[in-house]
Amino acid sequence: MDFRELERKVVAFREARGWRKYHTPKNLAISAAVELGELLERFQWESDGEILAAVKDPAKKEAIADEIADVVIYLTLLAHELGIDLDGAVERKLEKNGRKYPIST
Amino acid sequence: MDFRELERKVVAFREARGWRKYHTPKNLAISAAVELGELLERFQWESDGEILAAVKDPAKKEAIADEIADVVIYLTLLAHELGIDLDGAVERKLEKNGRKYPIST
Amino acid sequence: MDFRELERKVVAFREARGWRKYHTPKNLAISAAVELGELLERFQWESDGEILAAVKDPAKKEAIADEIADVVIYLTLLAHELGIDLDGAVERKLEKNGRKYPIST
Amino acid sequence: MDFRELERKVVAFREARGWRKYHTPKNLAISAAVELGELLERFQWESDGEILAAVKDPAKKEAIADEIADVVIYLTLLAHELGIDLDGAVERKLEKNGRKYPIST
Repeated sequence: MDFRELERKVVAFREARGWRKYHTPKNLAISAAVELGELLERFQWESDGEILAAVKDPAKKEAIADEIADVVIYLTLLAHELGIDLDGAVERKLEKNGRKYPIST
Repeated sequence: MDFRELERKVVAFREARGWRKYHTPKNLAISAAVELGELLERFQWESDGEILAAVKDPAKKEAIADEIADVVIYLTLLAHELGIDLDGAVERKLEKNGRKYPIST
Repeated sequence: MDFRELERKVVAFREARGWRKYHTPKNLAISAAVELGELLERFQWESDGEILAAVKDPAKKEAIADEIADVVIYLTLLAHELGIDLDGAVERKLEKNGRKYPIST
Repeated sequence: MDFRELERKVVAFREARGWRKYHTPKNLAISAAVELGELLERFQWESDGEILAAVKDPAKKEAIADEIADVVIYLTLLAHELGIDLDGAVERKLEKNGRKYPIST
């Protein structure tokens, strides 16, 4: 799946449910923050070693994957509402980062 | 670009810079939260109408797009470190959401 | 209650439960972010008018107050771990803000 | 300084600057999240040991203290707008936590 296909899917999903009226830019940014909070909660009292051990358990791995996916889904909806091409935005940001942090040779 | 290509790019980017040692699960989740905070900052004192007007200005639109991209980039790195296939995770989460919120007919 | 009394109470609370080992600076900052995510969740799909109406319901008001209190409690623990006098920190920050944003006359 | 004195100070500060119109519940919650993002940024690539070493440097300690203070200031303003007595809210939440997690004897 690429970003444009994801955008089509999530927009169709919310249109089918009549949720567009709730999907203002601020509400979608807040929603991404709420989901990121839930992702952080999974790491709250765990060390990095414990997190890496936990993802060997498929149920725990899926729970973490779900939280990451939720953030991505809300950011895709936010980008859609703002007319931002997320695919192009990520590509361009990686190029900017490359210029900002050149590889030392 | 699809999620697997994005994963390859961001992993190659950080390997070329020797940053892997900093990219623990907690650090990457914190980084996603830092970037989401910067996204929220752009909306902090704006109404939804003002945000939608602001993205008509290409410079402001790019600034917001950059923040969204940064969150996506860090989540992609986090998924990579945890062995999570982000593409599959998003697909599965959309299916779960569809079962949780069936379309009323 | 002032900040020093709050600090004494929350530190005594966690010492009595043997939780100090979990209360590293990063874990406490993550915990504050988790609780702030729960606060944001209460506002996620509400307009400002709806939020102001909701707090007329004592149960909803208490639920929001609880989330705000949780963030304050974790920040107090974080300040304690870092040797930061939160009372003095807030006082000093208000003075800095006053110099940064002088009152126009 | 106690919570009521802090509330009086921050409300007087913003009234003197005519900022009340910006201080809607959602904007203040977003502002607290923005400042918490800035706090997380200070811990982003540091280990807990490095953070505890950093606060021995007064300038670094003050920078972290400022970010914590900013979150507390915005939460105080949010509580004020919602008619929440933050002092009572924290007291009540500590009691609830005590009942939820009784001390094992």
